[in-house]
Amino acid sequence: MKNFTHFIPTRIQFGEGQISHLSELAQSGSKVLMVYGGGSIKKMGIYDKAMEILKEAGLTVYELSGVQPNPRIESVREGVKLCKEHGIDMVLAIGGGSTIDCSKAIAAGALYDGDAWDLVLTPSKITAALPIYSVLTLAATGSEMDKFAVISDMSKNEKWGMASDHLLPKMSIMDPTYTFSVSKRQTAAGTADIMSHTLENYFSPNEGFLQARFCEAILKTLITCGPIAIAEPDNYEARANLMWASSHAINGFVSDGYRVAWCVHPMEHELSAFYDITHGEGLAILTPHWMKHVLSNDTVEKFVEYGVNVWNLNPSEDKWVVAEKAIECTRNFFVKSLGIPATLREVGITDEENFQIMAEKAAKGCVGCYVPLSVEDIVEIYRAAL
Amino acid sequence: MKNFTHFIPTRIQFGEGQISHLSELAQSGSKVLMVYGGGSIKKMGIYDKAMEILKEAGLTVYELSGVQPNPRIESVREGVKLCKEHGIDMVLAIGGGSTIDCSKAIAAGALYDGDAWDLVLTPSKITAALPIYSVLTLAATGSEMDKFAVISDMSKNEKWGMASDHLLPKMSIMDPTYTFSVSKRQTAAGTADIMSHTLENYFSPNEGFLQARFCEAILKTLITCGPIAIAEPDNYEARANLMWASSHAINGFVSDGYRVAWCVHPMEHELSAFYDITHGEGLAILTPHWMKHVLSNDTVEKFVEYGVNVWNLNPSEDKWVVAEKAIECTRNFFVKSLGIPATLREVGITDEENFQIMAEKAAKGCVGCYVPLSVEDIVEIYRAAL
Repeated sequence: MKNFTHFIPTRIQFGEGQISHLSELAQSGSKVLMVYGGGSIKKMGIYDKAMEILKEAGLTVYELSGVQPNPRIESVREGVKLCKEHGIDMVLAIGGGSTIDCSKAIAAGALYDGDAWDLVLTPSKITAALPIYSVLTLAATGSEMDKFAVISDMSKNEKWGMASDHLLPKMSIMDPTYTFSVSKRQTAAGTADIMSHTLENYFSPNEGFLQARFCEAILKTLITCGPIAIAEPDNYEARANLMWASSHAINGFVSDGYRVAWCVHPMEHELSAFYDITHGEGLAILTPHWMKHVLSNDTVEKFVEYGVNVWNLNPSEDKWVVAEKAIECTRNFFVKSLGIPATLREVGITDEENFQIMAEKAAKGCVGCYVPLSVEDIVEIYRAAL
Repeated sequence: MKNFTHFIPTRIQFGEGQISHLSELAQSGSKVLMVYGGGSIKKMGIYDKAMEILKEAGLTVYELSGVQPNPRIESVREGVKLCKEHGIDMVLAIGGGSTIDCSKAIAAGALYDGDAWDLVLTPSKITAALPIYSVLTLAATGSEMDKFAVISDMSKNEKWGMASDHLLPKMSIMDPTYTFSVSKRQTAAGTADIMSHTLENYFSPNEGFLQARFCEAILKTLITCGPIAIAEPDNYEARANLMWASSHAINGFVSDGYRVAWCVHPMEHELSAFYDITHGEGLAILTPHWMKHVLSNDTVEKFVEYGVNVWNLNPSEDKWVVAEKAIECTRNFFVKSLGIPATLREVGITDEENFQIMAEKAAKGCVGCYVPLSVEDIVEIYRAAL
């Protein structure tokens, strides 16, 4: 186990009706910027409820709507401008990971003299941020309980993750009923995203025993609860388990002590940056091909551990058979149990045109990952997934 | 899954050499009360190292030593007096759970007008506490990362747990090498304590799927790493896994969403209060007898889940056979793998004299537990364990 710092001061209010805790925002000042995406929070009644609680608590609410999936630096700049103009005290994100990520960047940008894109490229420049609050409506990125944000500049085909303790939300409200209306497709993509966060840590050369078992706990939860949530969108237990798993897959809890770079995420980030596909679907498509590519004499035992502990495969079978079956189980889970497309072609990427440049960019993000990947390796994985 | 608040703001510095972070105490003021037990931290060199770092950071160090296992209210009162007399700014515990618990009570007592025992009996009276820091030297109670403290008044044969967000340490240093010198007996008792914390949550009527898998992850880690640490006291990985498991078994992480009262702990607290036995040994002795007592038609499926997922028992066997085997595995683990006495008689409790009064006290602590326990039930469990 490697040395690590574990620090997650976010207060989580978990469960039905916890939105009442929004009244506590008054502790952080009087002016709040409410950030959200499209109209879904209005249809679901969350917008009205939040407004009612915030106003009763004496807060003045400013709004930034229209935050898109793969949130854009343009939205961040717009939010920063509002914060600076109106002397806003805190940022409240209501939505999924994109809205929360955008809000984090706004909160940091509001206290930075310069363009917020600087902070995306050089997160060490973040020395303070406005208090960040969130109401989560999608179980996927874990942004509600971590220090990360991913922001895109589509004009440059660039998408970068930034990390800073200042980006940790002060409080996040996680009400599983708010995810009842998440479509089957988005539920599947979210489950795949959580699964990928976990696998990126699980496949590690310097793992901790406990952390590996925690990863397996999350993976088994996703395998059981993902399909239930897709079949029964208002199954509270399934939604609650997915939601709580989403936070723990990425808040540091399973990566503490590992110190391994991710690789499927950087590869997928290029797909989203170039083609604007759904992040979770890109991850689900790439993951089995990445697994096949890195399966070797050096890694086969790890795949056996994965197959036996997560997929209940028979440990007395030949190790290569177990490893191949584990990869097949993974693929089948994404395609058959979650209904995610199996190929890049199915999500609209029909030729290899950008694979070389995407691979060159992705390779930089993969440095230090479980099995080193060259630009050529990444192109091969993209091709296999086509 | 029940509604819950999750809040663990403690910064953990985990790994070899992390004691250097003690310099950060200067952020909390200039006067620190260092609390410890006997001379072991001097023998291990931790005392000198800590003093050197604290003095280099410009801190004035006051000392309270001699904190005993099952920490006494007398030590708390002594620490509170020092804090008030010298205007101390923060409390630094160096030791195991007893030292940290004592320090927490001191930190709260220092800002309370009245006797600290009031706070033990009525933790809602804790409205503030001095910043609490810890350097952990024993993996067991999880006190380094939770809001609990257990304090005894031996003159009244009383031992009570208190909980408050104000008791959460600000930073804890967890260096697994500091546990290399923990004796085989204390390592075994610590492992049993962590196991019991986990089982108290695992056996719950309103569990979350994810939380149950997290419990199993901790249990599997203890089963694997406990005996390694006993056989090879300086095995870093085993010590690190036990240490990190100890925190997560009790910091709220596996109990969030459960809302079940503990029962083996209240029963053991009376053993320690009346006979001053080692807490972890008392838990290990009682646990299998408690399990046998509560095994019924209503609980057998939970015992099967436990046997299959934790002890790798065969799920196709008769459920009663699996359940009985799971209990036998638990007993064998404590007695054979950890070398803990199997009976109360072996730890010096030779007659039933106090069972009735102990059971009456314990029953109050068990209200709301997995299977309701009457005073008679508890007496029966004590008798079976004799």
